[in-house]
Parts: sequence; structure tokens; C-alpha cells
Amino acid sequence: MSGFEIERKFLVRKNSNWKAMAKSSTRIKQGYFAAENTVRIRIRDNRGYLTIKGPSTNGGLTRYEFEKEISLDEAENLLKLCQGSIIDKRRYLIDSDTHTIEVDEFYGDNEGLVLAEIELSSETESFSHPAFLGPEVTGKKNFYNSQMRFFPFKLWRDQLSREYW
Amino acid sequence: MSGFEIERKFLVRKNSNWKAMAKSSTRIKQGYFAAENTVRIRIRDNRGYLTIKGPSTNGGLTRYEFEKEISLDEAENLLKLCQGSIIDKRRYLIDSDTHTIEVDEFYGDNEGLVLAEIELSSETESFSHPAFLGPEVTGKKNFYNSQMRFFPFKLWRDQLSREYW
Repeated sequence: MSGFEIERKFLVRKNSNWKAMAKSSTRIKQGYFAAENTVRIRIRDNRGYLTIKGPSTNGGLTRYEFEKEISLDEAENLLKLCQGSIIDKRRYLIDSDTHTIEVDEFYGDNEGLVLAEIELSSETESFSHPAFLGPEVTGKKNFYNSQMRFFPFKLWRDQLSREYW
Repeated sequence: MSGFEIERKFLVRKNSNWKAMAKSSTRIKQGYFAAENTVRIRIRDNRGYLTIKGPSTNGGLTRYEFEKEISLDEAENLLKLCQGSIIDKRRYLIDSDTHTIEVDEFYGDNEGLVLAEIELSSETESFSHPAFLGPEVTGKKNFYNSQMRFFPFKLWRDQLSREYW
């Protein structure tokens, strides 16, 4: 069920024999997400996705990731619950030997930033470095999209050019 | 895709003609959840669920709610990313006129607390009050399961008995 929920809640009186009136019961265990996890809503062309990423380990190299497709309607409703500016980018796929490199060209407050990502099957897997790859920024938090919504590229691009380019 | 992600990230060199090498591209817009939203992982008997609730409006009466079934494996992995103690309870269903009342009996650190919830189709809809319903606690934050994991019933039950019972 997705939508607006209206409910009223009451304490249950002791010794009121309520349990004898129950038609069924289920056991429930539940937990709530910590702020260190990233919960992302994405609209990609016309499809919606919900993604959850756990905290980074190994200097940002490994993260638990969960992704589910959701309806465009749901994605638009959930985007309204998001904080900070929306990240807007175009993702290009480039084949490089046996890998596919994803290159993200950012717009809006992150205009001018272009990042490449390569997904590996192990931390030690080797891969060829095409000439367009610049300095590695794996694990650097200001390049996380989740950080860029609060501290976009336009605020730190000058610092970056001294440091990396 | 769900699982562990290993990826390395690079800046892309200016004037390196990378765009001519792309085989395809997609436009992406995405946002990240604010801390005011609740992201809940639930295992109910042997099934997993992911639920997102927006902030309460109207004194806790109305909240946007999104729910998706996920696999038990996914639920167990996501539960590991949760913070505070896990809420453990048995939910009983009790028919009352045209409504079904859900009664939650809590265990563990919340042992002794029993709460009833009734879902309504509008904020003004009337319903019968069976004798087992005690004082209303709609919108009171210490009865939110998401709060009870940090501040469980055993820490405030004595205060409650003076105030409500």
C-alpha cells in the first residue's frame, strides 16, 4: 500500500479481555534506518528507482547497495520528501575492454563537473585506463552525489582545479 | 541489483573527446531522503517489507506512506543497517463493526505496552469504541515505534501510569 495514511492510536486497557476477540495475529520484528545510510530516489528517463546504500567501508571502495524499481508516480511523491537540491545529470556509457565506464555530466549547480565510474567484481581487479580518465577520487566525500546536494560543485570548483587539474 | 558494490571513481579530463566514445546515455534526476522521514525494515512472519513514511501532518493524523515487499534476505541485510534496538511485537487483528483494529503487544524493552490502531478513510470518519480502548495517544511521539527504539517503554512506563491510567 502506498498513499496517505490516516490513523488513530489508543492505549489498550489492562484486564479488558481484548485478546479473546482477535481473529488472527502475526509476529513482527522491525528496525529503522540510521542517518549514515543513503536513501535515494531516482528518475531515469521515465522509470523510478529506490536505492539504499550502507556506510562506506575500505575508504569508499565497498558499500552494501539495495535497489528496487518503483512506479514513476511513487518516485515523484517520494522525491517531494527529499532534502536539498535535486541532482540532475546525464549518464553516458563507454565500453573499455571488458568493462563499461559510466560517465556523469552534471547540470545545474554542479555544471562543469564530469565524473567517471567503473564497477569492479573485486577490490583487486585490474582494468585499462582510457586517456580521458583524470585523477582518481574514489572515497572522496565531496564527490558523493549525496554530499553534492548540500555543497554543490559551483562552491568548490576553484579549490578543485588547484588540487587536481 | 542488490549486493555489495565495488567501484572506483575518476575525474574526466577536459578536451579528451570522451563523449564521442559513448554508446548510449540517459538523463537522471535524483534526490536524497531527509532525516525527518522514517525508513523502516520489517519482517512479518517470514516476509520482508520496506516502508517509508513522510513527516506527520495534522498532529500525527496524516502521513504519506510507501510500502514495498522485499525478499527475506534483503530484509535481513537491510536490518543490519538499522539503528537502535529492533522493535519486536505481536500484532492481533480484531474486527469492530466495519473496521479492523490492530492491537500491538510489545516484547523486550517495550514489554507491558499494548497499543491499538484504527485506520480511517477520512479524518472525520466515525467508528465505535470497544471497551478495551483506553486513552487516545494519536500523534504522541513517544508512542511512535521509531522513537521507542531509542527511548523504550521500560524507561517511561511509570510516568505513563500517572498520566493515563
